[in-house]
Amino acid sequence: MSAEVLVDDRLKRAQDKARVLQEALPWMTRWAGQTLVVKYGGNALTPTETGPGEDPSFARDIALLHSIGVRVVVVHGGGPQISQLADRLGLETTFVEGRRVTDAPTLQAVQMALLGQVNPMLVRMISDAGAPAVGVAGTDSGQVMAIQHDPRMGLVGRVDRVDPTLLHQMLDSGRIPVMATLCTTADGQTVNVNADEVAGAVAQALGADKLIYLTNVAGLYENFGTPASTLLSEVGVGRLRQMIADDELVTGMIPKIASIVAALDGGVPQAHLLDGRIEHAILLEIFTDAGVGTMILPSPDAPR
Amino acid sequence: MSAEVLVDDRLKRAQDKARVLQEALPWMTRWAGQTLVVKYGGNALTPTETGPGEDPSFARDIALLHSIGVRVVVVHGGGPQISQLADRLGLETTFVEGRRVTDAPTLQAVQMALLGQVNPMLVRMISDAGAPAVGVAGTDSGQVMAIQHDPRMGLVGRVDRVDPTLLHQMLDSGRIPVMATLCTTADGQTVNVNADEVAGAVAQALGADKLIYLTNVAGLYENFGTPASTLLSEVGVGRLRQMIADDELVTGMIPKIASIVAALDGGVPQAHLLDGRIEHAILLEIFTDAGVGTMILPSPDAPR
Amino acid sequence: MSAEVLVDDRLKRAQDKARVLQEALPWMTRWAGQTLVVKYGGNALTPTETGPGEDPSFARDIALLHSIGVRVVVVHGGGPQISQLADRLGLETTFVEGRRVTDAPTLQAVQMALLGQVNPMLVRMISDAGAPAVGVAGTDSGQVMAIQHDPRMGLVGRVDRVDPTLLHQMLDSGRIPVMATLCTTADGQTVNVNADEVAGAVAQALGADKLIYLTNVAGLYENFGTPASTLLSEVGVGRLRQMIADDELVTGMIPKIASIVAALDGGVPQAHLLDGRIEHAILLEIFTDAGVGTMILPSPDAPR
Amino acid sequence: MSAEVLVDDRLKRAQDKARVLQEALPWMTRWAGQTLVVKYGGNALTPTETGPGEDPSFARDIALLHSIGVRVVVVHGGGPQISQLADRLGLETTFVEGRRVTDAPTLQAVQMALLGQVNPMLVRMISDAGAPAVGVAGTDSGQVMAIQHDPRMGLVGRVDRVDPTLLHQMLDSGRIPVMATLCTTADGQTVNVNADEVAGAVAQALGADKLIYLTNVAGLYENFGTPASTLLSEVGVGRLRQMIADDELVTGMIPKIASIVAALDGGVPQAHLLDGRIEHAILLEIFTDAGVGTMILPSPDAPR
Amino acid sequence: MSAEVLVDDRLKRAQDKARVLQEALPWMTRWAGQTLVVKYGGNALTPTETGPGEDPSFARDIALLHSIGVRVVVVHGGGPQISQLADRLGLETTFVEGRRVTDAPTLQAVQMALLGQVNPMLVRMISDAGAPAVGVAGTDSGQVMAIQHDPRMGLVGRVDRVDPTLLHQMLDSGRIPVMATLCTTADGQTVNVNADEVAGAVAQALGADKLIYLTNVAGLYENFGTPASTLLSEVGVGRLRQMIADDELVTGMIPKIASIVAALDGGVPQAHLLDGRIEHAILLEIFTDAGVGTMILPSPDAPR
Amino acid sequence: MSAEVLVDDRLKRAQDKARVLQEALPWMTRWAGQTLVVKYGGNALTPTETGPGEDPSFARDIALLHSIGVRVVVVHGGGPQISQLADRLGLETTFVEGRRVTDAPTLQAVQMALLGQVNPMLVRMISDAGAPAVGVAGTDSGQVMAIQHDPRMGLVGRVDRVDPTLLHQMLDSGRIPVMATLCTTADGQTVNVNADEVAGAVAQALGADKLIYLTNVAGLYENFGTPASTLLSEVGVGRLRQMIADDELVTGMIPKIASIVAALDGGVPQAHLLDGRIEHAILLEIFTDAGVGTMILPSPDAPR
Repeated sequence: MSAEVLVDDRLKRAQDKARVLQEALPWMTRWAGQTLVVKYGGNALTPTETGPGEDPSFARDIALLHSIGVRVVVVHGGGPQISQLADRLGLETTFVEGRRVTDAPTLQAVQMALLGQVNPMLVRMISDAGAPAVGVAGTDSGQVMAIQHDPRMGLVGRVDRVDPTLLHQMLDSGRIPVMATLCTTADGQTVNVNADEVAGAVAQALGADKLIYLTNVAGLYENFGTPASTLLSEVGVGRLRQMIADDELVTGMIPKIASIVAALDGGVPQAHLLDGRIEHAILLEIFTDAGVGTMILPSPDAPR
Repeated sequence: MSAEVLVDDRLKRAQDKARVLQEALPWMTRWAGQTLVVKYGGNALTPTETGPGEDPSFARDIALLHSIGVRVVVVHGGGPQISQLADRLGLETTFVEGRRVTDAPTLQAVQMALLGQVNPMLVRMISDAGAPAVGVAGTDSGQVMAIQHDPRMGLVGRVDRVDPTLLHQMLDSGRIPVMATLCTTADGQTVNVNADEVAGAVAQALGADKLIYLTNVAGLYENFGTPASTLLSEVGVGRLRQMIADDELVTGMIPKIASIVAALDGGVPQAHLLDGRIEHAILLEIFTDAGVGTMILPSPDAPR
Repeated sequence: MSAEVLVDDRLKRAQDKARVLQEALPWMTRWAGQTLVVKYGGNALTPTETGPGEDPSFARDIALLHSIGVRVVVVHGGGPQISQLADRLGLETTFVEGRRVTDAPTLQAVQMALLGQVNPMLVRMISDAGAPAVGVAGTDSGQVMAIQHDPRMGLVGRVDRVDPTLLHQMLDSGRIPVMATLCTTADGQTVNVNADEVAGAVAQALGADKLIYLTNVAGLYENFGTPASTLLSEVGVGRLRQMIADDELVTGMIPKIASIVAALDGGVPQAHLLDGRIEHAILLEIFTDAGVGTMILPSPDAPR
Repeated sequence: MSAEVLVDDRLKRAQDKARVLQEALPWMTRWAGQTLVVKYGGNALTPTETGPGEDPSFARDIALLHSIGVRVVVVHGGGPQISQLADRLGLETTFVEGRRVTDAPTLQAVQMALLGQVNPMLVRMISDAGAPAVGVAGTDSGQVMAIQHDPRMGLVGRVDRVDPTLLHQMLDSGRIPVMATLCTTADGQTVNVNADEVAGAVAQALGADKLIYLTNVAGLYENFGTPASTLLSEVGVGRLRQMIADDELVTGMIPKIASIVAALDGGVPQAHLLDGRIEHAILLEIFTDAGVGTMILPSPDAPR
Repeated sequence: MSAEVLVDDRLKRAQDKARVLQEALPWMTRWAGQTLVVKYGGNALTPTETGPGEDPSFARDIALLHSIGVRVVVVHGGGPQISQLADRLGLETTFVEGRRVTDAPTLQAVQMALLGQVNPMLVRMISDAGAPAVGVAGTDSGQVMAIQHDPRMGLVGRVDRVDPTLLHQMLDSGRIPVMATLCTTADGQTVNVNADEVAGAVAQALGADKLIYLTNVAGLYENFGTPASTLLSEVGVGRLRQMIADDELVTGMIPKIASIVAALDGGVPQAHLLDGRIEHAILLEIFTDAGVGTMILPSPDAPR
Repeated sequence: MSAEVLVDDRLKRAQDKARVLQEALPWMTRWAGQTLVVKYGGNALTPTETGPGEDPSFARDIALLHSIGVRVVVVHGGGPQISQLADRLGLETTFVEGRRVTDAPTLQAVQMALLGQVNPMLVRMISDAGAPAVGVAGTDSGQVMAIQHDPRMGLVGRVDRVDPTLLHQMLDSGRIPVMATLCTTADGQTVNVNADEVAGAVAQALGADKLIYLTNVAGLYENFGTPASTLLSEVGVGRLRQMIADDELVTGMIPKIASIVAALDGGVPQAHLLDGRIEHAILLEIFTDAGVGTMILPSPDAPR
């Protein structure tokens, strides 16, 4: 290619951008058509006066993945939003084993916070970023069936089985389902289910290629008790199983880690714990080798 | 068919039931594959302590129509639920021209009442009746786009256009979409839109065969001002157009009647105002000639 | 639901009907999309001067099942019609082991009676009831292949194999195939096959969910020889196998019972012997718990 | 291509055959995927003791066309077979304007002759020739609707409209529909319709590329009254219209010619009157330029 | 069929042709929808001044097979054309073990001869015969992946694996793929692969029903060394395996025979070595019992 | 989003890249599913000893567009490669009105250069970049039919009509067709057609959303004759029409400009002349607002 061509600065900067796009090409090619389940935590959304705060960088990352052909499902909870609304409505909140004790008025508050605040906010943000998001609940068409968890906790359930038909239809027609984790029991009762658990079960039912948990920690540490402990960039599922058995995990981590173990046992080839506070954390994980957070693989742990 | 057969009473009663099913057959045959949009008003749901009251007879009617192959879309509002929640949250409500003035905190309350209370309640009731209901919002995939109505009313919109693709996909796969009437403006703002208006616009966009408004009145009267006025069992759209022009309608009726006029002008072949307080009102209209409520047809009015 | 609503008698009766429809709903939901093979016997049709008599109640039941989404195949014989026509044409009829000895002129009479009388009459009656019936024969596209049964019986066959493709295509496009049991041998000879046997083989090939024989007896009795014997309302296939082995059955019952045994062994989950003389016998069986006739299940017999 | 190759006589004969196949190639290519409606007259079938005589050469021609991808529909009558059966059954036959006066017993005889004799015979013969034939009637799924012709003629109809959906489905799945011309009126009455008329209407409804009438005359003559008149090898539809207007046609020809005029007016691009007594008449017409019978084209007549 | 019909000579000859078509019918029926892979050797094309000579009889045979519904894939080499072009370009050619040593300039010549001469010539000839041919290369969409054969031979490969998706798509849409045997290695290098080997691998990947090699010999002889040896008309694959083991084959035959062995081991039910110098050799093999060339079957050899 | 998170340099650089991807998002969203026809000129490929030189940056740009869902068709010529090969083969080249005079030996050279050199090189380069390219010719399935241009030019054609079926099938199954511009006349003659003209006709037949010509000039100048003339960044098709009428264009530009005029008249909404010597010129045009080359729009020219 001969060259006596005048190229000005603006062109040079544009070409730099083109080169970045080119670097991303192999990852784009690899991820097109793959299925990704992202658990988005309510913690990432600072409540404001008129509802949950926004996180447009997350929404744009999801839209970018969608635009290169990744099939993305977002599963979300909304703990802080539920608590805030319960407060406003004068409801008292108790927790048993890390799960909110849920009577009928509390379930109404859960529905209003998840279906009436967080879910539409995520749908709107992703739509604003240019991608066709659709709000769904585990109760739609009975797609996530649950069994009541423990009478002491009230209207709280555990996933029984997931019918992925509706999600597949939406993904096949190019949409991004955003799921609130209200679910149904066999006798028609609506129950609240931990979003980490639903995300894992949905990933397994969809045959997802990757399961990502956006959290507000940097990842998984060698030794949770020890602050100066090393962050694990990659770990086998066996090590996680051991952490649960040895009771090494802080309470909030238990459903997350247990769901990852179940999902990987159920055939999901990899899971990630990413720090949602880092901008573009998902893009960094998918498109670069920057190495944020902890990747969990089904392969057996090497001895420590 | 000869006869010396012992038929006991139980059998006789069963055969009576079979005969009723048989009488319904011509209507079943006629309605299979047809599309029906039902506007369900929040008034029908007496609020209880833990949320809106239930209306299982409505849900079972919808499920019955679904089971004989009718493609049903339910569109709902939730005025009483919004007002009750706004009260609990200490928000003040003002109305301008029959539409709720909606600032940001009120919009949050609208979302919580519609998406977090009424919509999941309807989905659950229809699911309990055995049919696969799916909650949707006008904001999903931007399927109902709105324009802001009037700056004085705040976040309130009018329907701009409806993309029926998502609804068609759900109907094609045998589901019952239940739509809350939050919609999106071109610049991404969520707005509340009158459910009567959305129902009419959705019916038109879907090419629906019938549009039913379940109300808490007996139907349309010859002369609204006169209590002893005759209930109209059938009326042409021209008469409605005249009622609007002559300002004959009570405020709450205006969006309903205007939407019916628009829907019939847009090709929907018939609309019905039914009294939702009569049990099985929809079934009576579809399957019998009992004649409940008022049917509106596109044909020109006969002279009065 | 508040109440100051004037409800007249006509409305009350209409609501009673709506309630019956509602009671049928769970069965409708359960049977939609299921496949049902009904063997209809020629005995039910009293011959008249101009052909077989009519049975519109049967046809309307079939149309009702069709309208709620059941995939129905009707298989019919026509013994009385064949005999009557053979008489008119001056042909002599002999039977060997309950099967008509069939020479070439008799086969012509069989074809004329089944394809020219019974089949078009059933197609017309079901069409009159509003459902799209299509007459087919086992010989169409060679869908039911037979082998010659016994040289002594002439052009009489046994089912060799069934290709369900054409039936599936018709069911998929919403039609009701009505099958006459003329079949083809590998060397192209048309033969007459017992309709009970064809019904069972078709049910198995289609993977039907239920196989119903409409007969002119009340069902299966504990002990056929004893008139006062108890009617069995439910029986395991093992008991039937034993009846055949112990030679307990009357001649006309043998092909019916043998076909049921074969169909249940081949995966059909249930069969029914219903008394076709009871009006709406099929509807009673599908939609009520009135308990007409005998249900045969694959489960092992309970000890008597 | 060099040559010292020993080629024996057997090879030479085989190569002659290969050359014939090659000559047919352009016609094969041209006709693949085209739709052909063939009216087959009952006259071609000499009655025998046990039913209509056979015509395997016709059946094999149809199978050949099918095997090269032509979509073939056969429409047949059966006048001689009806008359013979009516005789055997002791029914008297009267004709009004060339149409059989048909009371209820005669309609039974028509059904038995067409559906029970001619139709299954044609299905079997074509199946024997290796192609998947399926017997259908105009009454199946109400695909040919008729109106009663003339009260004096009784149960005789004229075609009202044809729904080609079922025929298209069968052709799409590679089958050959063989149609008997019993049809249905709007109020559910079965009537007999002239097969020439049905063939033309079916060709028009299917958008057929060619319509062939197999007759027992050599074709259309310049002047029917004059025996030594010239056989027309090609004629415009205008000339036929004139023949009808001038009453130049013998009675039996009228429905044929009128149907051809209607079909060509309805968009069928060509029709043929072929002499069914010539072996392989259809193949000769499709694959060679031997010129048998009379071709009718929509183009205006040249002046005589 | 009565007869006083004047049939002239032209008609008689036409009927003779119709009879030949009829004789071919059973084979047409049998081969419709079957898949056939034909290896066409460059030897059949005598080079001329402006490119390879033509072979329209081959092309017309392929078009005939296509027109009766056979799915045909043509795989070709072009040894003589490559050699001639290499000469014109002044490139020297060396062979190692029967394969052309291929450096970069030679690969360019191979591409130009195969893709620029032989392939477009075959596509044009088949198109002229009326069938939609499409030129493809093993390199298209990486459909034939190869591994480098032997460093001494340079850019020469062996088939690693075949992805038949693109070929199936073309066959499904009624086209005839004509494949040049340039292939790709895992690291993106284009290599030349023996066309016999590609034909066998393609037949196996497609699940072809027959694999034909058009050669310039009469077939396979009992004993290659002995000129007066008997031509084998049918042979089991075991005998071929033995011929390879015993080194009985001439060099040029080795890849052909080895590919046949591999294809039959891989499930192709029959292969043929046909003498391409006999006109219509393929038609003779498919449509007659003239018995040209040698058929190889998977069945074990009978003892010699 | 709170922040005390250690972010190292590597992470910062990664986030910069993520931001570039984000900036491209709106364009990705806009271009997904759109169809783009790119004319690639042989001038961009510096000939080397063993064939045309490579241009991997172009190939990677095409692969990137493919990976975000753009439907890309590449159309190429190869003038320099044809000339070089003609020289090597000792053929003399003459031009008439900017088109190569093409006798039979020259056509062979054209085929060898385009189909044997440039086309496989482009297919290989795009495949190397990770996208499934497929080489096609206008002659495949007769998809580009031509008429002979001018007897003085020999085997040179003009586009007559384009059948886009094969291209659509390839695009639908996610492939990138790379087309060489050999075409077919109605009587089966292969002819060479100007690649600019084919690109425009293909874009029109496909209903493409954009047509790009990669050239070796900077774009279109206000006044071609004047070197210091201003480069037009956007121009209406009317201005181009005028340039042709006023004979303002250099010879090589005429077919390009005439094809653009025809394509825009035929419904293609925009065309671009881009400088292929600028790296990533296509990406810059699609994904940035850097403004390279000249965009041609159908809108009428503003007065100069």
